Amino acid sequence: MLKLIKKSGEKTGLSPGSLVLTDKKPNIPVIVRQTVYHAAHLQTQVLAPDYDWSGVRGNSHIIWLQLSGIHDFDWLEKLGAAFQLDRLVLEDIANTAHRPKSENFGEYLYFVGKLIDWDRGEKEISSEQISLVLGRDFVLSFTERERDIFDNIHKRLQNEDGRLRKSGADYLFYTLIDLLVDRYFNALEKLGDDIEQVEAAMMSDGDQASVRHIHHLKRDLLFFHRSVWPLRDAIISLQRLDTPLIDKKTTPYLRDVNDHVVQIIDTVETFRDLTSSLFETFLSLSGNRMNEVIKVLTIISTIFIPLTFLVGVYGMNFHFMPELGWQSGYFAVWGVMILLASAMLIYFKRKKWL
Amino acid sequence: MLKLIKKSGEKTGLSPGSLVLTDKKPNIPVIVRQTVYHAAHLQTQVLAPDYDWSGVRGNSHIIWLQLSGIHDFDWLEKLGAAFQLDRLVLEDIANTAHRPKSENFGEYLYFVGKLIDWDRGEKEISSEQISLVLGRDFVLSFTERERDIFDNIHKRLQNEDGRLRKSGADYLFYTLIDLLVDRYFNALEKLGDDIEQVEAAMMSDGDQASVRHIHHLKRDLLFFHRSVWPLRDAIISLQRLDTPLIDKKTTPYLRDVNDHVVQIIDTVETFRDLTSSLFETFLSLSGNRMNEVIKVLTIISTIFIPLTFLVGVYGMNFHFMPELGWQSGYFAVWGVMILLASAMLIYFKRKKWL
Amino acid sequence: MLKLIKKSGEKTGLSPGSLVLTDKKPNIPVIVRQTVYHAAHLQTQVLAPDYDWSGVRGNSHIIWLQLSGIHDFDWLEKLGAAFQLDRLVLEDIANTAHRPKSENFGEYLYFVGKLIDWDRGEKEISSEQISLVLGRDFVLSFTERERDIFDNIHKRLQNEDGRLRKSGADYLFYTLIDLLVDRYFNALEKLGDDIEQVEAAMMSDGDQASVRHIHHLKRDLLFFHRSVWPLRDAIISLQRLDTPLIDKKTTPYLRDVNDHVVQIIDTVETFRDLTSSLFETFLSLSGNRMNEVIKVLTIISTIFIPLTFLVGVYGMNFHFMPELGWQSGYFAVWGVMILLASAMLIYFKRKKWL
Amino acid sequence: MLKLIKKSGEKTGLSPGSLVLTDKKPNIPVIVRQTVYHAAHLQTQVLAPDYDWSGVRGNSHIIWLQLSGIHDFDWLEKLGAAFQLDRLVLEDIANTAHRPKSENFGEYLYFVGKLIDWDRGEKEISSEQISLVLGRDFVLSFTERERDIFDNIHKRLQNEDGRLRKSGADYLFYTLIDLLVDRYFNALEKLGDDIEQVEAAMMSDGDQASVRHIHHLKRDLLFFHRSVWPLRDAIISLQRLDTPLIDKKTTPYLRDVNDHVVQIIDTVETFRDLTSSLFETFLSLSGNRMNEVIKVLTIISTIFIPLTFLVGVYGMNFHFMPELGWQSGYFAVWGVMILLASAMLIYFKRKKWL
Amino acid sequence: MLKLIKKSGEKTGLSPGSLVLTDKKPNIPVIVRQTVYHAAHLQTQVLAPDYDWSGVRGNSHIIWLQLSGIHDFDWLEKLGAAFQLDRLVLEDIANTAHRPKSENFGEYLYFVGKLIDWDRGEKEISSEQISLVLGRDFVLSFTERERDIFDNIHKRLQNEDGRLRKSGADYLFYTLIDLLVDRYFNALEKLGDDIEQVEAAMMSDGDQASVRHIHHLKRDLLFFHRSVWPLRDAIISLQRLDTPLIDKKTTPYLRDVNDHVVQIIDTVETFRDLTSSLFETFLSLSGNRMNEVIKVLTIISTIFIPLTFLVGVYGMNFHFMPELGWQSGYFAVWGVMILLASAMLIYFKRKKWL
Repeated sequence: MLKLIKKSGEKTGLSPGSLVLTDKKPNIPVIVRQTVYHAAHLQTQVLAPDYDWSGVRGNSHIIWLQLSGIHDFDWLEKLGAAFQLDRLVLEDIANTAHRPKSENFGEYLYFVGKLIDWDRGEKEISSEQISLVLGRDFVLSFTERERDIFDNIHKRLQNEDGRLRKSGADYLFYTLIDLLVDRYFNALEKLGDDIEQVEAAMMSDGDQASVRHIHHLKRDLLFFHRSVWPLRDAIISLQRLDTPLIDKKTTPYLRDVNDHVVQIIDTVETFRDLTSSLFETFLSLSGNRMNEVIKVLTIISTIFIPLTFLVGVYGMNFHFMPELGWQSGYFAVWGVMILLASAMLIYFKRKKWL
Repeated sequence: MLKLIKKSGEKTGLSPGSLVLTDKKPNIPVIVRQTVYHAAHLQTQVLAPDYDWSGVRGNSHIIWLQLSGIHDFDWLEKLGAAFQLDRLVLEDIANTAHRPKSENFGEYLYFVGKLIDWDRGEKEISSEQISLVLGRDFVLSFTERERDIFDNIHKRLQNEDGRLRKSGADYLFYTLIDLLVDRYFNALEKLGDDIEQVEAAMMSDGDQASVRHIHHLKRDLLFFHRSVWPLRDAIISLQRLDTPLIDKKTTPYLRDVNDHVVQIIDTVETFRDLTSSLFETFLSLSGNRMNEVIKVLTIISTIFIPLTFLVGVYGMNFHFMPELGWQSGYFAVWGVMILLASAMLIYFKRKKWL
Repeated sequence: MLKLIKKSGEKTGLSPGSLVLTDKKPNIPVIVRQTVYHAAHLQTQVLAPDYDWSGVRGNSHIIWLQLSGIHDFDWLEKLGAAFQLDRLVLEDIANTAHRPKSENFGEYLYFVGKLIDWDRGEKEISSEQISLVLGRDFVLSFTERERDIFDNIHKRLQNEDGRLRKSGADYLFYTLIDLLVDRYFNALEKLGDDIEQVEAAMMSDGDQASVRHIHHLKRDLLFFHRSVWPLRDAIISLQRLDTPLIDKKTTPYLRDVNDHVVQIIDTVETFRDLTSSLFETFLSLSGNRMNEVIKVLTIISTIFIPLTFLVGVYGMNFHFMPELGWQSGYFAVWGVMILLASAMLIYFKRKKWL
Repeated sequence: MLKLIKKSGEKTGLSPGSLVLTDKKPNIPVIVRQTVYHAAHLQTQVLAPDYDWSGVRGNSHIIWLQLSGIHDFDWLEKLGAAFQLDRLVLEDIANTAHRPKSENFGEYLYFVGKLIDWDRGEKEISSEQISLVLGRDFVLSFTERERDIFDNIHKRLQNEDGRLRKSGADYLFYTLIDLLVDRYFNALEKLGDDIEQVEAAMMSDGDQASVRHIHHLKRDLLFFHRSVWPLRDAIISLQRLDTPLIDKKTTPYLRDVNDHVVQIIDTVETFRDLTSSLFETFLSLSGNRMNEVIKVLTIISTIFIPLTFLVGVYGMNFHFMPELGWQSGYFAVWGVMILLASAMLIYFKRKKWL
Repeated sequence: MLKLIKKSGEKTGLSPGSLVLTDKKPNIPVIVRQTVYHAAHLQTQVLAPDYDWSGVRGNSHIIWLQLSGIHDFDWLEKLGAAFQLDRLVLEDIANTAHRPKSENFGEYLYFVGKLIDWDRGEKEISSEQISLVLGRDFVLSFTERERDIFDNIHKRLQNEDGRLRKSGADYLFYTLIDLLVDRYFNALEKLGDDIEQVEAAMMSDGDQASVRHIHHLKRDLLFFHRSVWPLRDAIISLQRLDTPLIDKKTTPYLRDVNDHVVQIIDTVETFRDLTSSLFETFLSLSGNRMNEVIKVLTIISTIFIPLTFLVGVYGMNFHFMPELGWQSGYFAVWGVMILLASAMLIYFKRKKWL
């Protein structure tokens, strides 16, 4: 289940720019992978902690540096120094409870978003924070753990004639955001399937577990809602930035990503309306079913309670009860009871209770 | 039933502009129909796959090209090349999960909307995506399957004095959008009939099937809501475009279309409010009916349970029970019981339960 | 009951500007009444179908032409020709499903609104579309049927010193809109009375018919809501028009009308909130009443069911039941039963069920 | 109880500026009190109907004229003439159904608001309309009846060193509005007390009268909501007016009043949310209480109904029933019944119904 | 429990700028602590009532003056005189019912906010008003009582190389606001824990106390909502101020605080949605549980009521009842009853009531 709030830890009162872990320090290996490429060259390597960038930057290469494991503050500090990042940015990268946003720092752009995905293995929707930094000739990506989502990009980079290989760092930056946004559709599809399933079950039969199921759907959609609206603001502000870091040719692609985000928002809001309607319908159907049960109770009771009273009357032990001595008294009572029951059945029929 | 989300397939991670089918490839014949006309000339033909446009464009003709079957990527590529369309536009045309929008690409305008109609044959509301491209001398229309909605336009084109025949490509473009919008009214009328029917049934009798019916209405209206708001944005942005492709004389017509869309939005929102109110009223009426049932149960029970107790008392087999020997004991008990029942009936009358 | 949507008929696919009846052609006589006046002169006449305007216009007269019966397309066409109206305007006048709006056509202004009134005869709220056209020296008014709402204006016109007689066509135009808006108050007052009545009934007694009544109120208020918001936009856009047709001296009057419309909107929204609150309160009160019923059932049942069990025990026919032979067995059982019943009554008292 | 809509009477169709009473003409004495002051002089007198202003205006005095009783049209007309007020303003003053607003007429400002107060005598919230007119050297105040709210201002005016005495008419105007706004807090406090009382009662015990009480609270808050939002607009537009009538030194005071109004709005909206939440909680608690009742019914019934059946079996009069002859049959039945009852009690315990 | 409205006391009608206590005068010692520092110097002292600032201001020192106990009007007046504060500001400082806001008075900035914190001692969320005044070389902080929240700042000030010590008064001002905002997270975390606890309890078992608990959560969140939205406006207007009092270098820090406030708003709104959803789910689950109870009642009743009737029949004392004499009559009745009960059980099984 997605956590809706992350604890901010013991940060209160520290000076700004202090690196503080939002979550408990996880036991995950930290991997720093660097890909250096230009049209004619491509090389990927895992960096050692004492790696030195002198001689790498300043060429016409594009550097893509993937840090998997933002809880390694040494690496964060080192990268912050090597690429001249502001301390407030480092703090934001380490704080996994951040809202999606993008900010222009002049020499570089900072983008942070949520990577929401449907984890086929664990059968649940997972969420992770991803931070991107775009410089003139580099892109830094920060994720909480090693992920296979970037494999596809490595594959596309190997294509020497691909647009990705031939374009600048801003196009790589766009591609990473596009990937992030595309993943939302996976999770949304899963939610859509769940909603359809609940709806079908409800329409046919009315599974009792659905209240909890609907509550979980609402919760997940609330999480989506909360992640995707600020994501849109972040991407719109990227589009509107007046910065030399993003080439004019990349702008239509950002608009395309924005279209996708709007489509996601649209779907999320539709799903929220739909689950609300499902919930109300569920309540109403379950009320209907209850009413049917109570009707049966009422019919059985109202028919038999007077009859039981009647047979009770003739079960009394008074010495003087004239009817008891009648030859056909017993059958007369049966007759009266059948008449009574029939009258009540007809009454119920008229009232449409049967 | 309208599908609220379409699956995006296996697109994740592809480079932008890749053509991917949103739905499974349907088994529908692809038809490409081209109409070339000017004031004195009109000719319609079905194009063969090897058709060549050289010699057709550049004249004072207006070309209207209808592609029925957007799953045929060969045709899409071919048209994209012949009319110099951006690859992102081709991707949008192929992606049937798109939100309505309009975009200005300088040399041409791209418009995409949903064609919602009440299908009298299948007795349900159907939805299909329609894409339009307006160039200086051509209009391209892309639909998922062959449709009869354009027949009327062919008829109007045959009228040599008609405004459609004598105007430019932008008027044909407007006419197609107007047609699209007019179709919404058909579906809305059908929904309006359904709502009135549910309302009438509820007010007279209270059909049990209505909960599901109302849920379906809500769902359909949600779909409308989701289609028609972005449609309005698309049309407004068409009106505001500063482009030589749309003549000043056509602008009032676009404003008229906009009025219609606003009217549709208005009706959809009214219908949504109304179904909500119907749903609440339904719940309340069904609760009232239940209360009546429970009242009957209570009245029968509260009258007969004490009486049954009383006759039970005189059914006991104690050797010494003085009342049993009384001559008029039996009748006295009847008297007591009739008194008791009357008292309770009067009590219920006063409480307004009867 | 007010209709919430009007069917658009068979219009789909016609060229714009085609006159199409929204409703079935009514069987109502068409009356065209023309009033020509200036400060020193006033004349009203019913026009014949072959009336000719040559010699009437161009003088310093103001012409007020009332067409009652917009289904008479011949008259519409004739007036359209005589006063140079755009075909799109004629289409709008004939289409009674239109939203309130105002439009500036340069030579004239077009205004369309709903005339909502409380019909004392038929005891229901009626709605009709009214279109107004303001030219330099004329006002055209189009209604669906002959109405007495204009009688008052004829009376005021007869007053030679009245501001209406001495002012221009724009003041007549304003007066007609003012009249339209004033009528809303009648209908609102009626709704307000109904709401107060439902509220009073609910607070004292809880009439069972109220659910349906509240639903009707909600429906009527929805209709108001839908009519009055665009009316406000229409009047605001009239105020903001930069047109020589409306004199500066008339502007404060338009602002006054706008104030009234805002007051209507305010009241409508208040009424909507109030009926929602009434509905919820109704549900809750009706639930309370039910609970009281169920409580009585429970008390009677829980007291008598154990007692009935007890007398049943001593009604068994076992040969060996020691208690039956006891001299005071019968009275002991009564004692036990009275004790039991008292204990339960005390328990219920403590639980505050009595 | 506050009236939510006032009837507009028979105004429909009258020419604008006609004075019409909104309410029935009340039987209240009309008092016109005039206070003339400057730094060195202060005089208050009740004016006679034939009072003449010649010689009073034009000096360096500030005139504060209080009209209590706006139903006296003679006085209204007289004041209108003496201070050159527009007829539309007189109409607005007489119409007590007006929304709060402020308007700039060049030579004077017109302000109208609702005076909402908690009337300790009648123990209910009362509402009255107050109109203010600010001219260069005068302030006119119009109320429906004589009120003690201005006593405090008379007292402050007597202080020769007070800012009120030494400032211009605009400061008096501000002081009157400030007074008006301060009174809202009284009524709000009363509502706050009521809400807390209902909340406390609900949390401890669940008084049955609360549904009606909550409905009344909602209604009163709706009235507040409706009065205070336009009041804010009126005060903001006062602040933004570019008029020589309001001195720059008075502007911060108007901003302060605005802060108070925003605080009132804030409180009203919070109260509305709170009463909604209270209502829902009330419903839920009352449902819970009901469930407890039904549980007791179910437990008693389900335990005794089978037992009663069992004793009924051995009350049958069949000639051949072997158990009846058994020596220990009676005790065996008791044993079986005790076992059965215990089993059911344990079952209920497990189900957590006990 | 947090109070939602504070009474304004007897202020009505006083002249603006009068100091009035909102709450009853608390019995708390008033402490005024002054910290004077620059890069090379730091001194903190508790001021005596006759302290004189001559000789302190005007140097390059920064003065931080903490007044704990705003009910001491003598000190307020004294500070107002010493630092030239407007009387309206003093009134705002004394009025603890104020909305968060910030105002620019040219020579100084005024900021007022709510300090919401989770009080671990009293185990409840506490709220207090804090006012800050920023001048060129001083910061004044006003709290209702002595608090330990500033201890951390005193510690950071002791660090001679810290940014706080080396920056100007605006950085101290920012640090105080940052502290205020950070405290919200504590309280939010506590609320988040409570919500998760309620959710977990509900999903497993359905504690009956939860309705009240959820109502309290809603109430607290309403209080947050009400405090944090205007706080955001206050901070945004600080950012946008064009004032020499705030250095350009401090602006990014204010933006960072703003990010935090937006995150708080986000979380509060999410929590509100979540508690609403929880409340609905709770109602539905509790309804489900009730239905189960009623089903059991119905099943037991409907099975045994007819059987009891049957045994009642053969308990009648008619002299002539043929079945009573049959040898196997008793067993036949048992057979019939078992058949009947089985049939009903099968019926219930089919209806899915079992």
